[in-house]
Amino acid sequence: MLTVYGDLQSGNCYKIKLLLSLLGREHHWQHVDILKGESRSETYLAKNPNGKIPLLELEDGRVIAESNAILNYLAQGSDFLPDERYQRALILQWQFFEQYSHEPYIAVARYINKYLGLPAEREAEYRSKQEGGHRALAAMERQLAVSPFLTGDQFTIADISLYAYTHVAHEGGFDLSAYPAINTWLDVIAAMKGYTGMDGEA
Amino acid sequence: MLTVYGDLQSGNCYKIKLLLSLLGREHHWQHVDILKGESRSETYLAKNPNGKIPLLELEDGRVIAESNAILNYLAQGSDFLPDERYQRALILQWQFFEQYSHEPYIAVARYINKYLGLPAEREAEYRSKQEGGHRALAAMERQLAVSPFLTGDQFTIADISLYAYTHVAHEGGFDLSAYPAINTWLDVIAAMKGYTGMDGEA
Repeated sequence: MLTVYGDLQSGNCYKIKLLLSLLGREHHWQHVDILKGESRSETYLAKNPNGKIPLLELEDGRVIAESNAILNYLAQGSDFLPDERYQRALILQWQFFEQYSHEPYIAVARYINKYLGLPAEREAEYRSKQEGGHRALAAMERQLAVSPFLTGDQFTIADISLYAYTHVAHEGGFDLSAYPAINTWLDVIAAMKGYTGMDGEA
Repeated sequence: MLTVYGDLQSGNCYKIKLLLSLLGREHHWQHVDILKGESRSETYLAKNPNGKIPLLELEDGRVIAESNAILNYLAQGSDFLPDERYQRALILQWQFFEQYSHEPYIAVARYINKYLGLPAEREAEYRSKQEGGHRALAAMERQLAVSPFLTGDQFTIADISLYAYTHVAHEGGFDLSAYPAINTWLDVIAAMKGYTGMDGEA
């Protein structure tokens, strides 16, 4: 059986859980508590020397790191990863956008606020994340105002990648009320068959 | 004909140039000078609202952003992007690693040092990039010590992605002498048929 090493408080890990749940795919979820340093343990580092989660372990023991690489691997052959070449390019475009222009602002602001409790010494950093986060949200809004999903008419793993931290962006201090198309998109995804929320969500 | 909008002083743009050169593929290169603000011009923003380079424009006018998404699109069907599913996952794994754990340290340190001339007000930021950059180089070294290329025996677009900023890492203050496997890998790539250097390189 597939094993996923991850922590469901992390949006990057939740992406994998959401895809597996939408696919109805059986798997073993091995909880790794990052706040307790479990991703730096010797056992874990032997599997993934970078000490990052999530990590996918295949039946034969081979591993894959990086949440978006794992999504591409798992979605292969499903409706969430169409074969058409240009469509594939757009999916990757949004996933690289997510890791470079969205996550470092929205996920990091959320981490500082929600998990560290916004300590005084990181308040400047927290504030510095707001502009970049809103720039990323504006780019998503621009697209979602003209198509129901990020790459067009079809829900794909690009939507999963961006959904993960966008739907908890308020925990990083981002007010989403100015983004109507994003809100509609969030509602559509949360209503999908097989949907599952993050840890601690209702 | 394909058009690429880019600036060959940017490693992200150079990735595309290097792949097209190795493939021997004809294209039109449209220079966009980022330091002069040309990526923020009205004409350019009409094509790419995010105002980033590189951008690939297909024959029919459709566009693709994000350097690594462009590489995947262009390499389709070539030896640089094998079809095998696990191999593909590893290529994406290294490309996402590049954008999240390598570029934000090495490329940003290089930018501050080489293009901004290391101004006093950014010296702390520049210094803060060194640790993360060396962590990324160590991860590459660990892999390249056991296989000639990042995903195994075959040169792929994952190598192109990481080559771009690694081969000019010294311009960001990174001494590569402690990374013998990286140095061998750099030499092998620079000797490949069809290789081309960055702007201003010998």
